[in-house]
Amino acid sequence: MKAVVRSAPGVLEIEEMEQPKPAKGQVLVRSLVCGICGSDLHALHHAEHMFGVMTGGGDKPKGKMVFGHQFCAEILDYGPGTSRKLAIGSTVVSMPYASGPKGMEQLGYSEILPGGFAEYMVLDEALLLPVPNGLSAAEAAMVEPVAVGEHAVNAARLSGKSVAMVIGCGQIGLAVIASLKARGFGPVIAVDFSERRRKVAEKLGADIVIDPAKESPHARWAELNVPATMKDLATARYRGAPGDAVVFECVGKKGLLQKLMTEGPPAAQIIVVGVCMETDYFEPVMASAKELSLRFVIAYSMEEFAQTLGNISDGKIDAAAMISNTVGLSGVAGAFERMRDAEAEVTVLVDPAA
Amino acid sequence: MKAVVRSAPGVLEIEEMEQPKPAKGQVLVRSLVCGICGSDLHALHHAEHMFGVMTGGGDKPKGKMVFGHQFCAEILDYGPGTSRKLAIGSTVVSMPYASGPKGMEQLGYSEILPGGFAEYMVLDEALLLPVPNGLSAAEAAMVEPVAVGEHAVNAARLSGKSVAMVIGCGQIGLAVIASLKARGFGPVIAVDFSERRRKVAEKLGADIVIDPAKESPHARWAELNVPATMKDLATARYRGAPGDAVVFECVGKKGLLQKLMTEGPPAAQIIVVGVCMETDYFEPVMASAKELSLRFVIAYSMEEFAQTLGNISDGKIDAAAMISNTVGLSGVAGAFERMRDAEAEVTVLVDPAA
Repeated sequence: MKAVVRSAPGVLEIEEMEQPKPAKGQVLVRSLVCGICGSDLHALHHAEHMFGVMTGGGDKPKGKMVFGHQFCAEILDYGPGTSRKLAIGSTVVSMPYASGPKGMEQLGYSEILPGGFAEYMVLDEALLLPVPNGLSAAEAAMVEPVAVGEHAVNAARLSGKSVAMVIGCGQIGLAVIASLKARGFGPVIAVDFSERRRKVAEKLGADIVIDPAKESPHARWAELNVPATMKDLATARYRGAPGDAVVFECVGKKGLLQKLMTEGPPAAQIIVVGVCMETDYFEPVMASAKELSLRFVIAYSMEEFAQTLGNISDGKIDAAAMISNTVGLSGVAGAFERMRDAEAEVTVLVDPAA
Repeated sequence: MKAVVRSAPGVLEIEEMEQPKPAKGQVLVRSLVCGICGSDLHALHHAEHMFGVMTGGGDKPKGKMVFGHQFCAEILDYGPGTSRKLAIGSTVVSMPYASGPKGMEQLGYSEILPGGFAEYMVLDEALLLPVPNGLSAAEAAMVEPVAVGEHAVNAARLSGKSVAMVIGCGQIGLAVIASLKARGFGPVIAVDFSERRRKVAEKLGADIVIDPAKESPHARWAELNVPATMKDLATARYRGAPGDAVVFECVGKKGLLQKLMTEGPPAAQIIVVGVCMETDYFEPVMASAKELSLRFVIAYSMEEFAQTLGNISDGKIDAAAMISNTVGLSGVAGAFERMRDAEAEVTVLVDPAA
């Protein structure tokens, strides 16, 4: 089969490789469509450092990887020991994990099992979710990133008086906005330098969109009745309470957290969804004086993944609004480059058969 | 009157200064006894940096300060516009704030109003709490630091399945332990390099005390049925849930938070009570991968301050166990030096009349 292989740091090549075989409890699937994630852009150049830090210095990848963990697939064949509840030809999604000979592999960053930028993959039958009738493969592939937003929103303590600010309207920031609006939450303030991304945020229901090059997003807290300064906290003139200001950091850039801590409101909940891959710094005195809370989140639970599929198929989340382009395998390397420009692309999908 | 004055970085001198006069709504009090806080040790050398960071670069102290914010006092006289509900001679405590000509002053770090290392102070009548009969001034003076512990514990989400680990058994770590045990919470693991402080932790009710020079405190999570590793989180063999591991960081030393993030359990609540005064660093990838939460806390509310006075006077908290020595004004500079040695002192009280 053909696959886009990350063969060395910074290198993506189309290679002919052996088709994977479903082991016990697994299915063989055709990758119908698979989104390119911001983490893929980072891993292309820095996978060795990324996994080195996450595993405490060990287990750095040494081999080749087929990226792609935001996939929708079609069941082609069942392996041994499967219950075969879904018909051959069914369209499915799965959390991006599958059993390998050494234990669970993280699909899309595995050196053993291919991710969705290959023609074929193997998945664990136990993790399959059938895609409801009428939902396109492209929209179903967005379940994975949108579930990250669902998880981040679940980690926040939200009340009827909370105000949410989403910093960064890339794929994950948009997912957070979509998840907040799917549950009827507002107001949501969306912040991004890119006009294109701000427009998508608006389409997904953001109540206020801000270009931080033109105005400080933090000027809006006070008008939304959230304590915006230490002095506001000490007075009764705001309806809000500590923790009502909820900031979703969806960028993952060094120094941004400290900037949010300094410029943002006191007693804020900062939900850290973006993953900064470098050593970062902060001023603990500032965090203490403002009694900030930082909640680092990653991925999602099985329940959140399934819930997100439901939200998309029920029309509560407009996943299509987050997709800007679809390319074949030969277009993957170019799409990686274009996605580094926020005005050029939002989410690019890969269709291995295109 | 006589006072210990911080006249320059690193310099504490006894000086003769003018006795403060109670303004409208204020009382003149005699400082009966006043504890030396860890923040005082830091402020002696670094007050300029400390307040510069907290105020975003402005408002650095330029004058002299009389430290002392953990005080118990005796009412000597009432100023104008007071309701005089408490008799002259009453013993009182107060949160360390009082009105000055420029607004509220933080007693103990004010350049206008003296703190408790002076013979006399002025306090706002509205903030006074009478010390119940039978409670010594020394124990009452401990309300302030113990309230910091009460506040930190209130910021944690504790369940019947939580396990608390207190890193650092200085005054504030001991206050956290006392507050946890006052509400019947357990198990509490106390961690300190100092044998003397571990003994006080034990006296205050810590269930397990650990010398981190001899064993990793994090080895204990698993035996207490809290998920201790990422693998434990993924299996059902622990009764615990994410967030059950609650770590109170009560040291405030650069690099310690990252060490706790790396070595501590996943999904932990880290309550940051210690205030690191330097720029600190951390690895966001580690925090994200382990889904850690950091809750920075400082000080206490009025309710927590009053509750703490009740807990001490009701005998729920043995404040006397935290006191290691009492000195007169001439002993303050030496006590500051001794308190830098964890084996030498725990909390030293200053009695300006001694």
